[in-house]
Amino acid sequence: MAIDRLTEQITFLLEIDKLKNVQRRTYLVEGNRRENSAEHSWHVAVMAMLLAEHAAQPVELKRVLQMLLVHDIVEVDAGDTYCYDPQGEQDKEKRERQAADRLFGLLPADQGRHFRELWEEFDARQTAESRFANACDRLLPMMHNYYSGGISWKEHSISSAQVYERNGCISEGSKEMWEIAAELIRKGVAEGLLCS
Amino acid sequence: MAIDRLTEQITFLLEIDKLKNVQRRTYLVEGNRRENSAEHSWHVAVMAMLLAEHAAQPVELKRVLQMLLVHDIVEVDAGDTYCYDPQGEQDKEKRERQAADRLFGLLPADQGRHFRELWEEFDARQTAESRFANACDRLLPMMHNYYSGGISWKEHSISSAQVYERNGCISEGSKEMWEIAAELIRKGVAEGLLCS
Repeated sequence: MAIDRLTEQITFLLEIDKLKNVQRRTYLVEGNRRENSAEHSWHVAVMAMLLAEHAAQPVELKRVLQMLLVHDIVEVDAGDTYCYDPQGEQDKEKRERQAADRLFGLLPADQGRHFRELWEEFDARQTAESRFANACDRLLPMMHNYYSGGISWKEHSISSAQVYERNGCISEGSKEMWEIAAELIRKGVAEGLLCS
Repeated sequence: MAIDRLTEQITFLLEIDKLKNVQRRTYLVEGNRRENSAEHSWHVAVMAMLLAEHAAQPVELKRVLQMLLVHDIVEVDAGDTYCYDPQGEQDKEKRERQAADRLFGLLPADQGRHFRELWEEFDARQTAESRFANACDRLLPMMHNYYSGGISWKEHSISSAQVYERNGCISEGSKEMWEIAAELIRKGVAEGLLCS
């Protein structure tokens, strides 16, 4: 019985290896290449470990980490949807729901449900944990964009208004993190990395 | 004060982005490229979430996840040491200790200590959490090696005896996971991926 469960768990683990081939728009801080969703998921989880003390409300770190480790897995099927692409956003929900059905369906039923719940909690931004996890997930790419010299912002002619609109919810997760984000936007505009 | 801490935390987060450029010997399951230590760290943390129920002793999952998220960070400076390279193993400890001093030294002192403790606990394999975390960290590359058609094993003419010696400690972390590992070795030999 334990071995049957293990077989399903291992099948899932082999399948999600494909997340390492899902390219995001964001570049590494060094700017030498775009990052993938698997390495991003590691980075944002470490970020949460370090910044949990700045969360707007106390958070259960274990759940934050689990949410961040799981939050992009649907991209194995659905791909990364660029957050400033209105067309991609239109059918994102449907694509990701189908991906969740297939991918989490590979797991033993109880674990499939658990992973799906973590993913849905993350997306809904209704709990202290998911608000903080989303704050990390939004601030980190802004850091990448700014410190890589704005490559991705410039490639897509992104404006400060778009970045404000997309990332305003950081303030729900952490005031201090939002101050950092707002400063990056101001500097991005002043340095010509973002359209004003 | 919170902003000073945040500045140190962000400096560290930008610095560890370099882990995404540290190549391991292991290939992705598809075999299309070698994996890096950052995406590996994500993968092995998800593995721990799923397989904790098979741990030899009950484990505190939060600490297991934190250990696995942190365990390879020293490679930013020390590089990945190939586990079947006796020369690299000789000065690995010294290189990694210096890396830990510099990298964890970027953090606020309390968090630097915490990250260092997690890293040392992982390496010492004396607690239930670290034994299980190490079992994950050893089984996962074996899965990669076997399911990618043994590319990395064949590139370095690895023998089953070397794999047994390196990975026998999986059994301290989980009997069921060791059964899977032993089966991969047997199949690897039978299929000519490993020297017998």
